[in-house]
Amino acid sequence: MGRQIIYLDNAATTRPNARATERAGVFLTERYFNPSALYSDGFSVGVELKKAREFLLSRVVDPTAYDLTFTSCGTEADNQAVFCCGKRGNVVTTAGEHAAIYASCTELKNRGVEPRFVPVLPDGGVDPEALLRAVDEKTSLVSVIHVNNETGAINPIAQLAKRVKEKNPRALFHADGVQAYGKIPVRLPKEVDLYSVSAHKIGGLKGTGALIHKKGVHLSPYLFGGGQENGLRSGTENVFGVMTFRYAAEEKFASLDRDCERIGELRERLFSGLDGRLFRRLSPQNGTPYILTVSAEGLRGEVLQHMLSDEGLIVGTGSACSSRHRYSRVMTACGYTEKTLDGVLRLSFSPETTLEEVETAAKILNETAARLKQKTE
Amino acid sequence: MGRQIIYLDNAATTRPNARATERAGVFLTERYFNPSALYSDGFSVGVELKKAREFLLSRVVDPTAYDLTFTSCGTEADNQAVFCCGKRGNVVTTAGEHAAIYASCTELKNRGVEPRFVPVLPDGGVDPEALLRAVDEKTSLVSVIHVNNETGAINPIAQLAKRVKEKNPRALFHADGVQAYGKIPVRLPKEVDLYSVSAHKIGGLKGTGALIHKKGVHLSPYLFGGGQENGLRSGTENVFGVMTFRYAAEEKFASLDRDCERIGELRERLFSGLDGRLFRRLSPQNGTPYILTVSAEGLRGEVLQHMLSDEGLIVGTGSACSSRHRYSRVMTACGYTEKTLDGVLRLSFSPETTLEEVETAAKILNETAARLKQKTE
Repeated sequence: MGRQIIYLDNAATTRPNARATERAGVFLTERYFNPSALYSDGFSVGVELKKAREFLLSRVVDPTAYDLTFTSCGTEADNQAVFCCGKRGNVVTTAGEHAAIYASCTELKNRGVEPRFVPVLPDGGVDPEALLRAVDEKTSLVSVIHVNNETGAINPIAQLAKRVKEKNPRALFHADGVQAYGKIPVRLPKEVDLYSVSAHKIGGLKGTGALIHKKGVHLSPYLFGGGQENGLRSGTENVFGVMTFRYAAEEKFASLDRDCERIGELRERLFSGLDGRLFRRLSPQNGTPYILTVSAEGLRGEVLQHMLSDEGLIVGTGSACSSRHRYSRVMTACGYTEKTLDGVLRLSFSPETTLEEVETAAKILNETAARLKQKTE
Repeated sequence: MGRQIIYLDNAATTRPNARATERAGVFLTERYFNPSALYSDGFSVGVELKKAREFLLSRVVDPTAYDLTFTSCGTEADNQAVFCCGKRGNVVTTAGEHAAIYASCTELKNRGVEPRFVPVLPDGGVDPEALLRAVDEKTSLVSVIHVNNETGAINPIAQLAKRVKEKNPRALFHADGVQAYGKIPVRLPKEVDLYSVSAHKIGGLKGTGALIHKKGVHLSPYLFGGGQENGLRSGTENVFGVMTFRYAAEEKFASLDRDCERIGELRERLFSGLDGRLFRRLSPQNGTPYILTVSAEGLRGEVLQHMLSDEGLIVGTGSACSSRHRYSRVMTACGYTEKTLDGVLRLSFSPETTLEEVETAAKILNETAARLKQKTE
């Protein structure tokens, strides 16, 4: 603890924004009231939640046309979208989804709904034609990840949603926006009905997420009880989490374009510093600037990750959530061979990442991979 | 904000324990890593969650015989118990349950399971004979609130669970322990299979709860995704919430008996300070010391609540969650007339409550009720 580290696993979670937690601190100390309470101290906390909701909506949609339901995480938002909207016929999604969509769509089989997983392109992006072919008149929901959390590929959800609606106007369109919201420019067209977001990927807290949903889209409740969140998600609201989300998002959106550009430069600087004989780039050039996925081909990513951690460099090997399996399901779906899959490292950035850090990171990566290679040869 | 208040709505939510949030603060600033990550900084956060789990279990059960799944609130724990264990036949519960159980059991009808709501006694406690009569060989789950959140009545869940098992050994027994855990002495016998708890009722944060469940009881996953919480509840863990829960619980359990005694005295001091011509006691003498429910008969509790709030005294009128209905469903089930129901006030305490506060509170209550009575006569 307290040791100097370079943290490049921001796609797994970010360090909470200290200014945001400090601003939200008043909801821990003085304004701790239950927002459902009818006395003014409680009611006024409810008003703050309402303002937070409107702010978070307004950054990506017309807030008069959409609602936002706070959830306990991106996974819950994804599950709510799948189980509340995928109730009949089939649900079309991709092989490149986060586990929150992949596993919940798989569960649909047990509930009499057919999940259809369409293949992805080598960079992890969805194949639009394959997606469209899978949609038919029985499709109740289509779900496509906005930014692939393992490769960084950006899916053209606006176009995809429009084409899905042309083929089946009754199908709902959901996108998992967890790696996009507050990071890359997003403006949802009216064809996107549902959009999942998460706080802890942009300086908020673990334990806070939200499902954005178009007004008029019928959602059934996900948690039953006191009727909070317009009856869709009962349970006392996580006020500190929501307010930290709001304040963190405020900062992220204020500098979004600037951050995107700067982080894109850092990503390229890091990549150009890597020894091309040791590392192969897997992330697409036109993907999110926040993620650079590479493979130290022939080496074990997990071993490398531990060695890097000993050197003070924290990187991912794929989605932290799916860390129980040897190879990432998504990277496998991209079509890579075992040699490539073995060595996958995900380097992911935040606005806190500095040029000095990425330059040092490139050095550590080169030296450590070379050392491991020597050992294993 | 910042004005001097006397806060007697601790059953709705408590002020977070400042020592607990401070101790947990390191998980916001330095140890912000994803607990599912495999590098040591992440892994060690996962170890802390494991220790928190064991600690929270060990206070009420043998931690080798039970598991604990962290959830986002008591409501989620209740919903998980109902929907994961009430999958066939009928589910027996009471008219005195919190909305999280009442509404989820009502939803069971839509899922082909029959909910059976048995009546409560005038003090809000369950009628044991009525409960037992409702249990038959088709009962898959029995759910009884441990401490009634509106009246403070304590249900004898240990005896009830034993008798339920004698009648149907296959029925699972769940208790909603949200108003009991960390407040009154609890030791669950092996006949209690599931137990819901919440952090923000005992100095933890809103957005953290847990479901305690006996090993060997089959639970299906509630959220699908990365497989956190042994696959039962996917989603990045709310580390700050869990650690604050752990530290807050540590303090609560350390002084539980002492607090119970002292708060019981405060409750009686408050009640004896109330003008008997204005207030009628609805809470039973042998209920939880933490809740004193009274009725200012013939007056509107909501109006009184606002007037009291203007005087700096914060009280509840019933469960904050069910604040949308004119009369509390639970208090109605107790059999009170409209005159009594109208005037219900719930005064609820925390270890922070002082003698001076309850004495002042009694005065404010008497004066304000008298004033309102004069106005309305």
